[in-house]
Amino acid sequence: MSPTQAIALLERLRAGKTSAQAVLRVFQAAPLADLGFAQVDTHRNLRKGFPEVIFGSGKTPAQVVDIARHIWRREGRVLVTRVLPEHARVLRRAFRAAVFHETARCVTLERTPLRKRPGVIAVLCAGTSDLPVAEEAAVTADVMGNRVERLYDVGVAGLHRLLGNLTLVQKATVIIAVAGMEGALPSVVSGLVSRPVIAVPTSVGYGASLGGLAALLGMLNSCASGVTVVNIDNGFGAGYAASQINALASEKP
Amino acid sequence: MSPTQAIALLERLRAGKTSAQAVLRVFQAAPLADLGFAQVDTHRNLRKGFPEVIFGSGKTPAQVVDIARHIWRREGRVLVTRVLPEHARVLRRAFRAAVFHETARCVTLERTPLRKRPGVIAVLCAGTSDLPVAEEAAVTADVMGNRVERLYDVGVAGLHRLLGNLTLVQKATVIIAVAGMEGALPSVVSGLVSRPVIAVPTSVGYGASLGGLAALLGMLNSCASGVTVVNIDNGFGAGYAASQINALASEKP
Amino acid sequence: MSPTQAIALLERLRAGKTSAQAVLRVFQAAPLADLGFAQVDTHRNLRKGFPEVIFGSGKTPAQVVDIARHIWRREGRVLVTRVLPEHARVLRRAFRAAVFHETARCVTLERTPLRKRPGVIAVLCAGTSDLPVAEEAAVTADVMGNRVERLYDVGVAGLHRLLGNLTLVQKATVIIAVAGMEGALPSVVSGLVSRPVIAVPTSVGYGASLGGLAALLGMLNSCASGVTVVNIDNGFGAGYAASQINALASEKP
Amino acid sequence: MSPTQAIALLERLRAGKTSAQAVLRVFQAAPLADLGFAQVDTHRNLRKGFPEVIFGSGKTPAQVVDIARHIWRREGRVLVTRVLPEHARVLRRAFRAAVFHETARCVTLERTPLRKRPGVIAVLCAGTSDLPVAEEAAVTADVMGNRVERLYDVGVAGLHRLLGNLTLVQKATVIIAVAGMEGALPSVVSGLVSRPVIAVPTSVGYGASLGGLAALLGMLNSCASGVTVVNIDNGFGAGYAASQINALASEKP
Amino acid sequence: MSPTQAIALLERLRAGKTSAQAVLRVFQAAPLADLGFAQVDTHRNLRKGFPEVIFGSGKTPAQVVDIARHIWRREGRVLVTRVLPEHARVLRRAFRAAVFHETARCVTLERTPLRKRPGVIAVLCAGTSDLPVAEEAAVTADVMGNRVERLYDVGVAGLHRLLGNLTLVQKATVIIAVAGMEGALPSVVSGLVSRPVIAVPTSVGYGASLGGLAALLGMLNSCASGVTVVNIDNGFGAGYAASQINALASEKP
Amino acid sequence: MSPTQAIALLERLRAGKTSAQAVLRVFQAAPLADLGFAQVDTHRNLRKGFPEVIFGSGKTPAQVVDIARHIWRREGRVLVTRVLPEHARVLRRAFRAAVFHETARCVTLERTPLRKRPGVIAVLCAGTSDLPVAEEAAVTADVMGNRVERLYDVGVAGLHRLLGNLTLVQKATVIIAVAGMEGALPSVVSGLVSRPVIAVPTSVGYGASLGGLAALLGMLNSCASGVTVVNIDNGFGAGYAASQINALASEKP
Amino acid sequence: MSPTQAIALLERLRAGKTSAQAVLRVFQAAPLADLGFAQVDTHRNLRKGFPEVIFGSGKTPAQVVDIARHIWRREGRVLVTRVLPEHARVLRRAFRAAVFHETARCVTLERTPLRKRPGVIAVLCAGTSDLPVAEEAAVTADVMGNRVERLYDVGVAGLHRLLGNLTLVQKATVIIAVAGMEGALPSVVSGLVSRPVIAVPTSVGYGASLGGLAALLGMLNSCASGVTVVNIDNGFGAGYAASQINALASEKP
Amino acid sequence: MSPTQAIALLERLRAGKTSAQAVLRVFQAAPLADLGFAQVDTHRNLRKGFPEVIFGSGKTPAQVVDIARHIWRREGRVLVTRVLPEHARVLRRAFRAAVFHETARCVTLERTPLRKRPGVIAVLCAGTSDLPVAEEAAVTADVMGNRVERLYDVGVAGLHRLLGNLTLVQKATVIIAVAGMEGALPSVVSGLVSRPVIAVPTSVGYGASLGGLAALLGMLNSCASGVTVVNIDNGFGAGYAASQINALASEKP
Repeated sequence: MSPTQAIALLERLRAGKTSAQAVLRVFQAAPLADLGFAQVDTHRNLRKGFPEVIFGSGKTPAQVVDIARHIWRREGRVLVTRVLPEHARVLRRAFRAAVFHETARCVTLERTPLRKRPGVIAVLCAGTSDLPVAEEAAVTADVMGNRVERLYDVGVAGLHRLLGNLTLVQKATVIIAVAGMEGALPSVVSGLVSRPVIAVPTSVGYGASLGGLAALLGMLNSCASGVTVVNIDNGFGAGYAASQINALASEKP
Repeated sequence: MSPTQAIALLERLRAGKTSAQAVLRVFQAAPLADLGFAQVDTHRNLRKGFPEVIFGSGKTPAQVVDIARHIWRREGRVLVTRVLPEHARVLRRAFRAAVFHETARCVTLERTPLRKRPGVIAVLCAGTSDLPVAEEAAVTADVMGNRVERLYDVGVAGLHRLLGNLTLVQKATVIIAVAGMEGALPSVVSGLVSRPVIAVPTSVGYGASLGGLAALLGMLNSCASGVTVVNIDNGFGAGYAASQINALASEKP
Repeated sequence: MSPTQAIALLERLRAGKTSAQAVLRVFQAAPLADLGFAQVDTHRNLRKGFPEVIFGSGKTPAQVVDIARHIWRREGRVLVTRVLPEHARVLRRAFRAAVFHETARCVTLERTPLRKRPGVIAVLCAGTSDLPVAEEAAVTADVMGNRVERLYDVGVAGLHRLLGNLTLVQKATVIIAVAGMEGALPSVVSGLVSRPVIAVPTSVGYGASLGGLAALLGMLNSCASGVTVVNIDNGFGAGYAASQINALASEKP
Repeated sequence: MSPTQAIALLERLRAGKTSAQAVLRVFQAAPLADLGFAQVDTHRNLRKGFPEVIFGSGKTPAQVVDIARHIWRREGRVLVTRVLPEHARVLRRAFRAAVFHETARCVTLERTPLRKRPGVIAVLCAGTSDLPVAEEAAVTADVMGNRVERLYDVGVAGLHRLLGNLTLVQKATVIIAVAGMEGALPSVVSGLVSRPVIAVPTSVGYGASLGGLAALLGMLNSCASGVTVVNIDNGFGAGYAASQINALASEKP
Repeated sequence: MSPTQAIALLERLRAGKTSAQAVLRVFQAAPLADLGFAQVDTHRNLRKGFPEVIFGSGKTPAQVVDIARHIWRREGRVLVTRVLPEHARVLRRAFRAAVFHETARCVTLERTPLRKRPGVIAVLCAGTSDLPVAEEAAVTADVMGNRVERLYDVGVAGLHRLLGNLTLVQKATVIIAVAGMEGALPSVVSGLVSRPVIAVPTSVGYGASLGGLAALLGMLNSCASGVTVVNIDNGFGAGYAASQINALASEKP
Repeated sequence: MSPTQAIALLERLRAGKTSAQAVLRVFQAAPLADLGFAQVDTHRNLRKGFPEVIFGSGKTPAQVVDIARHIWRREGRVLVTRVLPEHARVLRRAFRAAVFHETARCVTLERTPLRKRPGVIAVLCAGTSDLPVAEEAAVTADVMGNRVERLYDVGVAGLHRLLGNLTLVQKATVIIAVAGMEGALPSVVSGLVSRPVIAVPTSVGYGASLGGLAALLGMLNSCASGVTVVNIDNGFGAGYAASQINALASEKP
Repeated sequence: MSPTQAIALLERLRAGKTSAQAVLRVFQAAPLADLGFAQVDTHRNLRKGFPEVIFGSGKTPAQVVDIARHIWRREGRVLVTRVLPEHARVLRRAFRAAVFHETARCVTLERTPLRKRPGVIAVLCAGTSDLPVAEEAAVTADVMGNRVERLYDVGVAGLHRLLGNLTLVQKATVIIAVAGMEGALPSVVSGLVSRPVIAVPTSVGYGASLGGLAALLGMLNSCASGVTVVNIDNGFGAGYAASQINALASEKP
Repeated sequence: MSPTQAIALLERLRAGKTSAQAVLRVFQAAPLADLGFAQVDTHRNLRKGFPEVIFGSGKTPAQVVDIARHIWRREGRVLVTRVLPEHARVLRRAFRAAVFHETARCVTLERTPLRKRPGVIAVLCAGTSDLPVAEEAAVTADVMGNRVERLYDVGVAGLHRLLGNLTLVQKATVIIAVAGMEGALPSVVSGLVSRPVIAVPTSVGYGASLGGLAALLGMLNSCASGVTVVNIDNGFGAGYAASQINALASEKP
C-alpha cells in the first residue's frame, strides 16, 4: 500500500465510505511477512513510496518467486534486479505479468503501471559496455513512474556526441551519468547543466580500473558541483534516487 | 547573472523597456575573467544557477580576494569555502559584507540574500566532531536560498536521539546525513523516509577508519535505497546538490 | 579429553578408584597424532576446552576423514567447517553419526551432545544472503554446548524488524551480529544492549564492498562500545568466541 | 543511573520507601541533555551499564568539561579518553576528583569506585611502544569495576618472556593482547588458554606496517580460535568489551 | 658534452682541426665524478642528450651546490628541481647565473640557452592549485630548448575555457595536461587532437583523491587513445618526455 | 577520411577538379553513425588521424561486425583489439580481408596498407608471458603505418640479452618496453637511450604482483627520465601513442 | 656449465689435457639460445651456479618441452616449477628422466644428481594447506644439492608442535618457514635460532587474508631479527635463496 | 654472554678451571631484566648470537640509557638504532664509549670490537637519498663482526656505474641492495652474481611510490632468483640477516 493509497483510504473513512474497523485492520497487519529465510518488509511502500525491491543475485529462483508472490499480492507491483536467465524463466512461468528486461537483467510485474510524472530522467552512458548498468537505471526509473530518455555511447573521448545532444540533457529534471574506465562523463555533464547529476561508476575496464574503483574515485573527486555518486554498477540505486528527486519536482510545493 | 535575471532582462526587452543593443552587450561579455593565475568562470551563474564558488584551500588570501572581487561585482553573491582564519581576516578587511562562519570554515558575501524556497533541507550529523562538515553543508544550502534545519550528534549508537526527532527528518524535502567512523547514519535515516538522502562521509576516526574511507565505503554499500554519496568531508558538495534538488521541488512542474 | 574429564579422572585417583599408573599413561600420550600430512593436536581439548576443529576447505575428502577419525576416537565429538557436498557425502559414508548442516556448510559428529549451558547466544543477520555465515556461527555455538536463538534478515534499512524483536536480543548472554554491505547492524544492536556483541562481516555485496572489506572496516570503526570483530565470513570464529564467553557466564565465579 | 541503581529504586518503591510519583519523575527525565554542540546520552548507563564515555580527541577542553559536568552530576563517574595534557590540566582544575593517567592518556572521575568483580582481566602487550594502548585498556577495565593484571613487553620474538608467566595468563577470565608490527601475540596466547582473547592491533611500526594495518590483518587471520579484534589503537574498546565479558562471569547464571 | 658537441668534435678531427690525442682525452674521462655521497653521471649528456638533472628534495643545500658545480663546469647547463627557498638562496649565492623559478620550485643555470626547436609544447592545467606542477613541466621543457605555451585553469567543469582555446592546443606538437581531483582533462584534450598527450596527475584534492591516486588511475584508464602518464606531481618527467618527443619532430627524418 | 584525404579533397577543389557542393556534402555528413547500441565516431580519422578502433572485449561478435562494417565502408581500415577466437571466426566470415593476429588477440582489415613511415618503433618485452601485450602493441603500430622491430624475452635478470642488442634499441625512434613482475625493463632501457620510452606494465606474475600493479607502480617511479606509462596490459595504447610520436618524427618541421 | 665445471675445464687446460682451441669454443658459444618465443639464458649456470629454471605457468606444454630440451642438452639438469598435470604428462613422455613432484607441482630432470652439501635446510610449514608451497621449496633446495628436512603443520596455535621439534630446527643451517593466514611462524622460529630464516607467505586463508597479503605484511614486520621474505607462494625463490646461503656454509672460507 | 663465551665457560669447567656452582650461577640468572617499562631479553646473545638491539624510535632518551646500561654491563656491546640527535647526546653523556653514526642514525658501544670474519658484505644503494638506510645496514653488519664494502649511488638509470664496479660486487659473500622509487637495483645485481642478495626498499620517492610500497612490491616480484626482502627502510634487518649468512660462510662445515 503506497502513501497515496493510504491517504485515499483515510479519506474514504472521513467520507463515511468505510468503517473505522476496516481501516484499523489494514494498519494492524504486521509490517513483516516472515518467510523463514526472509522477512518481507510489507511496510516499505507506506514508508518509502515503493514496495521492497528484490535483489535476485545469490537467491534461488524459488526464493525469488516466494518473495515476489508476497509483494505481488499486496502491492501489484514488483521489481526484481540482477536476475539470471534462470530466474527470469521461473518468474515468467509463475507470473503471466512478468516482463524480462534482458540487457537490464531485471524482471518487472505491474498490475497497472504507475502514471508517469511530468519531468524527464535522462540516462547517459559513456560506452557500449556500460549498457547493462544504464538499462538497470532506466528500467528502475520507468517502473517507479518516470519518463526516461536514453543517450548512450557519449563518452568524453568524442565530445561532439554529447554536445550534439545538449538540448535533451538540459531539459531533463535529473540526469544519470553512467561510465566506467576513467569515469569523466558526469563531470563534463554537470558542468553544462543546473540539474542534479547522479554518477554511476561501472566495472567496465581492465588493469588499473581496479574493477570500477578508478571510475568511482574519479566521480567522487569531480570538480563539477552537484554530482552525487552511487556504488559501482548500481544502476538500480541511481534509478531509485532519481525517481525520488523527480517525484519532488512534480509535487506541489 | 542568474538565469532568473537573464529571463527578466529578456522580458524587459520584449516589453520595450530596454534596447536590443543593451541586451547584446550583456551577453557579449566574454564568459571568462582572466586573472593570470585563474580564469574566473563568469558564465557559471547563467549555466548552473549559482556563481562560481571559491575553494580557499591552497590559495593565498590575496588570490582569494582578487577572485572574490570579480564575482562580487558581477553577481553580488560570493561563497568561499575551506578558509583559514587568515583568509577570513583579509576578506573581512576587503569587504564590509563578508560574514565568517567559523565552524563551517566559510565566508559568505550577499548584496541581498536569495528568497528562501518553500522546502526544508535537514542536515544531520552523527557526532560532535562531524560539525565542521555539517556546517559547511548547512551554510552552502542557506546561501543558495534554502531553509535549513540542523539535527546534530544523532549517531546510531543511541538510536533514541534520532527516533525522537523523526518528525523533523520526515518533513524535510532533502536530507544530508554526515557521519565518520562506520558511517551508518544515512542507511538508518534512509530506511525511515521517502525523500532523497545525500550521505557525507567524514575523516573523523582513527586506525581502520583510513581517513574516512571506511565511512565512504559503508555509505556506498548502503542497504537502503536512495542514498547517494559525495567525497569525504565534502559538505559543500552535499549542500550544493541538496539545493539543486530542493530547487526542483519548488519549481512548478 | 576435556578439562572436565581430566579433573574427573584426577578426582577418581584421589578417591582411590584408579591407579597412578593409569593416570600417568593418559597424560603421557603424545599430544600429537602424526598423519604425515597433518599433526592432529590431540591436546587441544584439554588446553582449549574443545577438540581441534577441521577446516574442510582445501583438504581432500580422504584427508578430512582421516583427521576426523583420530578426533572421533579420542573425543567422540567432531566439527568440520567449510565442507563441500563431496566432503559431506564421504563423511556420511564413513561415519553413521555424521550430520550435514547444508546452509552452514558444516558436518558434526557427536557421541553424546554436550549439556546445554544456561545462557543464550543470539545470532542475528542483516540479509538473506548472510545466512551461510550466520548458520556456521549457530551450528558451531550449538555443538559447543550452547542454546542458540536465530533472528535473520533484520538489516538496518527496516529498523522495525529489529526493534520488534528487541526482547529476544536483550535477553541473550552474547550476541553475534552478521552483516555484509555496509555492516551497520552490530553498531545499532550494540547501542541497545549491555552484553558483548561479536560482529561478523560477510562478503555479501558488490563493487565498493570489496569482498567484505567495507563491512569489516565499518564494524572495526563502530561508534558503539563493546563490539569486537572477526574475519570476513568467519561464522565459526564468532560461534567459538561466543561459546567461550557464554561458558564464563555459566561458571560459578 | 546504572541498572543496579534502577532496580534498587524500584525495590524501594515495592518496599513502600518511596512514592510512585518520585519514581516516575526519575524515569520521565529526557534521555538526552542537549548542550547545543552535543547531545549527552544520559540514558546510556541504564541501557549499557556504564555512562557515556567522552572521546577527548578533537574536542576543545571547554567542551570536554561541559560534557563531563553533566555526566558527573548524574552518574558520579566519568571516563575521558584520548586527552591531551591541555585537556587534563583543565579537567583537573574543574574537578578535584579528576585523576590523570598519563601513559593511558585518560582522565577518570569517581565519586565512589565500583566494587571490583571477582574475575581478573589480563592485559598483555608485545613491546614498550604499545604501552599507551595497553594502559588505555587497563584504565578502562579498572574504572568499570574489574581487577586488572598487566604483563608487558612479552612479544613473540622472545617466547620465554610469555611462557615464564603462563600461570598469570591462564588464571585470567579475559585476556587483552596488544601488539603492533606483525601482531602475532594474540595467536600465540589464544593457543594456550581457553578464555576469550581480545586482540588490539597498534600503529607501532614503520614501512609495511601501514599504520597498524599489518597487525590488524594478522589478528583477523589468526589461526587460533576465539580471537576477536578491535580497531587499531583502540585500547578503550578492548577494555570495555573485556569488562562486559567479565561482568557475565561474575553474574549468577 | 651533448651529442651535438661530440659530433662537432669528431668533425673537427676529420677536418684536421684537432689531434686524435685531444679527442681521445675527452672520451677517456671517466663517466663518473665521485663526490663521496654521490656519483655524478657525467656521461649522461652524451647518452641522453641532456646533463644529469639534480632532484633537490632530500639533499642539503651544500650537496646540491657541489653536484651543480660539477655539472656546470662540464656542461654549462644545470637544472635543479624540487628546491626549497633555502636551496635557491644558497645556489644564487654560489652561482651568478642561477635563476630561481619560484612557482616551479626550480633553479636553472645556462651559460648559453639552447636554440629553440621549431615545434611548440603546450602545457595545460585544470586548476589554480596545479600551477607548481605545470610550471615545473614548462620550465623543464624550456631549459631543454623548446618553445612552451601555457594554458592554465581550463578544467572540464567549464568546457568553454578549453574549447575557446582549441587553436592553441591543436597547433602544439606535444601537449602536457596537468590535473588533480578526477583528472579528466587529458581524456577530453586527447579526444580533440592527433598529437601525443602526456598526462600529469597532481596531488591536488582531498578525501577520496587519495593524494593524487584518483587522478592517476583516471588518466591510466583514459578512454582516449594516445594518452601516456607520468607519476603524481612529476612535472619534470612530463617536460623531459615532451622535449624528447619534440626533438624527434624537429630532426630530419 | 584521414586528414591527408581531407586536404587532398580541398586541394582538388582549389584546382577546380571538384565542385564546392561535392565538398560540402562530404563535410556535412553527421559525424556519428547511430547503431542503436553504439554511436560510431565517423569523424575520428579526421580529428585523430586514424579511424575509431573497436575494443572487442564485452561486445558480441554481431556487434563487432556491425561496427566494423561502418568503419570499413568509410575508411577501408579497421583494427579490432581484444578479440576472442569466436570474434575472429565471425569477422573472418564477414570480411574476406580480415587478418587474425592470434598472439596479439587482434583482427585487422586494410583495403590498402598505409605507407610505412621512415622511423622504427622497437617493441621490447621482458618475458615470454608478456608476448600477447607486446604483440598487441606491435600490430597496432604496424597497422598505423610504422615499421616495427621486436626484441623479446630480454628481462633485466639477464642483462646481456638486452646489452647484446643495444644497437637495435638505440636506432629506434620510439621504444615500447613491456614487462610484468617488477617492471624494471623500461628504467634500464631508458637509461641507455635518448628517445622516448613508453612503458607497458603487464599482469604477468602472482602474489604481490597484484595483477600488474607492482609493475605499474615501478614504471611510474622510474628513476630514468623520459619514461611515460600506459595502463596494465594496454599494448594497444602504447602502440597508438608510439605511432603518434613516430608520425611527428617523419613530418617536416 | 656450472662454475665448478668451468674451473675443471680450465684446470684441464693448465694440465695440458685439452687444447686452448677447445676451451675457446666452449666460451665462445653465444650465451643465448633463441627459440623465437624465448631466449634461453644458457650462460646462467656459469653466472649463477644453476641453470635457468623454467616457470611452467602460462607456457604451453610444447614450449616447456622445447626450453627444457635446450637446457637438458647443455646442463643435464632441469627444474620446471608451477606445472599443471598436462605439463607433467608431456614432459614425462618427452624425457625418460622426468620426475613429477605432484604436491610441489614441479618436474625435475637430473643426469646425475648433485652431491649433497654438508648443511641441512629445514622446511617448516604452519598448516596442511601450505604443503604445495613448502614442497616447492623443498624440491628446489633438494635438486640444487642440499639435504632437506621437513617439519609440517607446526602453526603457532599449538606451540608444542614446534617446541617439541626444536632440535631439528636448531641444527639446520638455514630455515624456510612457510605460513598463510597471519604468518606468525617465522617470527616465533627466528626468535629461537641464530640461523637465517627465510619466510614464505602463502595465499592460504580467506576474507581479510587478501590472497596472502596479510601473511606477507606480517612477515615483513616481524619483530624477530634476521627474517627475510619472498613473494607470496614463492616456494621456489625461498628454496633457491636457501641453497645459495647453504652453499656459502659449505665453501671453505 | 655469546654462544662462544658459553662454550668457553663449559670448557673451563671440563678442564677443572671453574666449579660447577659457578657455572650453574651463570645459567641460573633469569633470562630477563625487568625494568618496569621493558623486559630486557638478557638471554638473547646466547640464543641468537648477538645481544638485544635497542630500537630508539618512540623511546625517551632516559629509557634508552636504562636499557643500554643493562646490556652494556652484561655484554659489553650495544647497538641502538633509529636514534634522534637528542638520544645520541644523552647516550654519549652516559657512556664514554658511545659512538654516534650520524647518517646511519645509530649509536654503538663496544668494549672490544668483534674480530672481523673472513667474508665481505657489500652494501649497494641506488641514490643519494637512500644513504641513511644503507648506512644503518653497514653499521649493523660492522658491529656484528663483518667487513663491509660500500658502493653508493649506482641506480639502474646509469648502468655503467654498477657494471664498472662489478668485481667488488662479485667478490662479496652477501650483497645488500638498497633502493627506493622503482627498486630495480636488486634484480639487476642478482642477475649478475651467485651470492645471496638481500633487498631493502626505501621510502624515497613521492606520489605513486606510496611511501616505499612501490619499491617493496618490485623487489618481491623480482624476476631474478635468490632475492629476499626486508621491510621498507629496514637497513638494520638487512645488516643483521647478512651477518647471520656471512657467519655461516666463515664457520667450518
